[in-house]
Amino acid sequence: MQRMKVDFNYAMDAFVKGGLDDSALEKYREKSRMGLSRLLKLVDDGTAGFVNLPKQDTSDIKKFAKRLNGKFNDLILVGIGGSALGIETLCTALLPHGYNARSFAERGAFPRVWLADNVDPCKISAILDECNPEDTYIVVITKSGSTVETAANFNVIFEWLDKGTKDPKTHICAVTDPEDGTLRKIADNSGFATFSVPKNVGGRFSVLSPVGLLPAALLGMDIDKLLEGAGSITADKYEKIITLASIYMYFMDNGRNINVMMPYSSRLASMADWFCQLWGESLGKQFDINGNEVLFGTTPIKAVCVIDQHSQVQLFKEGPQDKIVTFIEVNKHERDKKIIAEYEDYKYLEGHSLGELFNIELLATEAALKNTGKPSMKISIDSIDEQTVGALFMLFQYIIPVVGLACDIDPFDQPGVEEGKNYAYGMLDKDGYADMKKKYEEIFVKRDDFIV
Amino acid sequence: MQRMKVDFNYAMDAFVKGGLDDSALEKYREKSRMGLSRLLKLVDDGTAGFVNLPKQDTSDIKKFAKRLNGKFNDLILVGIGGSALGIETLCTALLPHGYNARSFAERGAFPRVWLADNVDPCKISAILDECNPEDTYIVVITKSGSTVETAANFNVIFEWLDKGTKDPKTHICAVTDPEDGTLRKIADNSGFATFSVPKNVGGRFSVLSPVGLLPAALLGMDIDKLLEGAGSITADKYEKIITLASIYMYFMDNGRNINVMMPYSSRLASMADWFCQLWGESLGKQFDINGNEVLFGTTPIKAVCVIDQHSQVQLFKEGPQDKIVTFIEVNKHERDKKIIAEYEDYKYLEGHSLGELFNIELLATEAALKNTGKPSMKISIDSIDEQTVGALFMLFQYIIPVVGLACDIDPFDQPGVEEGKNYAYGMLDKDGYADMKKKYEEIFVKRDDFIV
Repeated sequence: MQRMKVDFNYAMDAFVKGGLDDSALEKYREKSRMGLSRLLKLVDDGTAGFVNLPKQDTSDIKKFAKRLNGKFNDLILVGIGGSALGIETLCTALLPHGYNARSFAERGAFPRVWLADNVDPCKISAILDECNPEDTYIVVITKSGSTVETAANFNVIFEWLDKGTKDPKTHICAVTDPEDGTLRKIADNSGFATFSVPKNVGGRFSVLSPVGLLPAALLGMDIDKLLEGAGSITADKYEKIITLASIYMYFMDNGRNINVMMPYSSRLASMADWFCQLWGESLGKQFDINGNEVLFGTTPIKAVCVIDQHSQVQLFKEGPQDKIVTFIEVNKHERDKKIIAEYEDYKYLEGHSLGELFNIELLATEAALKNTGKPSMKISIDSIDEQTVGALFMLFQYIIPVVGLACDIDPFDQPGVEEGKNYAYGMLDKDGYADMKKKYEEIFVKRDDFIV
Repeated sequence: MQRMKVDFNYAMDAFVKGGLDDSALEKYREKSRMGLSRLLKLVDDGTAGFVNLPKQDTSDIKKFAKRLNGKFNDLILVGIGGSALGIETLCTALLPHGYNARSFAERGAFPRVWLADNVDPCKISAILDECNPEDTYIVVITKSGSTVETAANFNVIFEWLDKGTKDPKTHICAVTDPEDGTLRKIADNSGFATFSVPKNVGGRFSVLSPVGLLPAALLGMDIDKLLEGAGSITADKYEKIITLASIYMYFMDNGRNINVMMPYSSRLASMADWFCQLWGESLGKQFDINGNEVLFGTTPIKAVCVIDQHSQVQLFKEGPQDKIVTFIEVNKHERDKKIIAEYEDYKYLEGHSLGELFNIELLATEAALKNTGKPSMKISIDSIDEQTVGALFMLFQYIIPVVGLACDIDPFDQPGVEEGKNYAYGMLDKDGYADMKKKYEEIFVKRDDFIV
């Protein structure tokens, strides 16, 4: 099994003023342990289903993927939010950069992959331009079946497929609720292939369900290794979970409202986006579980280094004391390149490798931040592969609910997205939303003198 | 000329509690005007060169690009930070999604484009795998010529080119200082083609110099229209600049330390990254121009909608009162698609278009945020093309220095990136940095008990 290490030296007062001392660490560890025991109770009673996903039987998914392999040149994934960010994370981490530009043979007979997430007509049109319906497979993913963006994109793509193929239903698989919802009904009535998202697994915790596993298998990833990595987060990793949760909570309580996820790897860029969703949507809440108004939640930020050393680090180092940074370090970068310095002025690089430079820059940035009193932690993984990516998913899927539950926050709901959705339904004249349309039209009147 | 509108209704106390009232608006407008007059003085005395870039002669760039058109299948851009984010913004906005997957003919004989920004060995290896040296053109971009990541990637790519082509120098163009620096010397000695970054244009303000224009021209973009759009930000747009700067400053002074840039367009995703660099690096400063320690700067965040409605909006709506949101609205989405609803449950979408849904969702989110007292502004543009992208670049290039100069902050330096760079040089054993290596080794000793 891969090794994972958590280094929290620079979150401690011994190194960074205002960090945790021993008694603060113990206090927050107590709180984290309480959060963890609440989470484990929700696992036991079947509410928090994501923890048990590593034990699922993947044989149907693998059989399905094997049957499709080599048959299609393009795979379009229709989904958004929790139905898109997980598979995007897997693609960015595990497929080579520029994968879609490679030939069918270079891709090992696996399809190109397109994410129809945004309802941006330009993006959707460009995807459809590039694909040939006869040669394209569609996976439409929405647990509820009613997500408006997914519905809109699916309708547009279905029409394109319907015009361009003899038997469109053989080109479509739906990943949705096992029994309920619009998409389940449509899929069953139309004879689409289907896979189910377990009822006790919420959208943003669903990457290790068929939501992520089916597209991953269709793209040739080793989904059993992914689950093996995720399944490695067991009791012997609780100390890491508790420590990270404790430090996050301490800094939340001490005026640092920004949580920076900072991998030193282009391949983990989407992992940072995925983390931002899980953190933001799970912890950003107006009310706690007792109904008190709390306006809870710190703001997650993605920073991909070294790129963001040339963008955000100036602010992170010199700006206000409002951030905690989590570095992700990759010990071994695959396909590393030795630098042969052709020109005298670059001789200092001779003999070093890109991967070595990469990790040196992490150490240098960590040190520079420390020197202006900016706290950080570091998660180190051995390399990037199915196992470590699976382990990172599960690590964060533990930490974030632990923080929420320890602070009396429900990490599994998202009440704040309803209102906007209902206004949109109203403006679209959906049945039953006339009152929202009216409310919008009455309340949201603007003044012309506030427009320039 | 394209129209641009700034709507700040929901930043005003008349609509959102805690927003600006008339007197606050007037006060901050005064401050902004002072910042603007300081900026215009720096333009007059030749310090702030970016403002005059729209007037440059582009004939050499266009001639050069015309000569190269059709001759290469791949273009690798070697650069990072200010030498990468601008052209990335142009590519995301103006090339079709999935551009690199298109055939040579579909691309109009323009090359595929690869960004060698990060020193991630996996990324660089994957790029070189895909390209054939004889068929590849390299543009290496660094104003100083010494940026370590660009040097490292350039050396690796040069070696690859040197092994695979007869005359590597005919495959390389350098964009760098007109006279000084390592890359200028190497380029002149080696006979590379070169273009110059004006001495009075800093890296993050350089997108409208050859840094952005040369790659843009090589990819078939209309660089004159880009400059025309940028050049449209003249005195008659000062009211927009002053208003936006005023509102940003007001909320900075009133406890909102997070600045969310939220385009409703996948094509403006990199524009938000570019904005984040310009804002973060220009305003995040430990000291003001008088030498007082101020730990200045709010933190910019990118949120691309509607994607981030399913990720960040829960937090933005329900979480703490610590953000100001700037929406970017695109009035007309090209290649819009009417929705034909195949299934009964999706009938409410019938007759609407993706672009219409897109803009309805913006209105709905703006309304939902307003209802929990979260302030926002909205910049509306007619469509996305060279002119509007150029105009957005210049608008933000004005606003951010205006904010800085109004607050006694130097928006044109970045002292905070030096320390980390010097530690890295030390660890790489670069001549003259032995003391930094020693300092690192002495100071940054960690404790094993803070590792789990």
